[in-house]
Amino acid sequence: MLVRPKVGILDPQGQAVEDSLRQLGFSVADARIGRVVDLDVDAVDVVQARADVERMCEQLLANPLIESYEIEITG
Amino acid sequence: MLVRPKVGILDPQGQAVEDSLRQLGFSVADARIGRVVDLDVDAVDVVQARADVERMCEQLLANPLIESYEIEITG
Repeated sequence: MLVRPKVGILDPQGQAVEDSLRQLGFSVADARIGRVVDLDVDAVDVVQARADVERMCEQLLANPLIESYEIEITG
Repeated sequence: MLVRPKVGILDPQGQAVEDSLRQLGFSVADARIGRVVDLDVDAVDVVQARADVERMCEQLLANPLIESYEIEITG
């Protein structure tokens, strides 16, 4: 799953990366930093896996006030 | 682009998330944490964009000793 700062939310880490890339001579209009969380979960099927990961996001992995998340189920 | 700790490299952040998820009652076999970096770059085409982002990864965004990265170009 991917967790990103919501649009409009300040992202100081992304701003620092953007500034550093420009100082290195790269042409960058914007940089935003989020997290990728790779989880290996036990679930009977894809539907249950997605429901479980959604609950994990709400309870621990993302802050819904300032972050959005995206779940991708594989394997 | 996605930056992840390489296989075999300790990931204390992932370990902490794994422990916390188990304490919340979730059945998780493994959790690994990396970064997602969304970049808006100026490039003439997809080939140049990918080459630029690869150089950004090598120079700033990833530590090739302990991290692997994956580049996806959109737009």
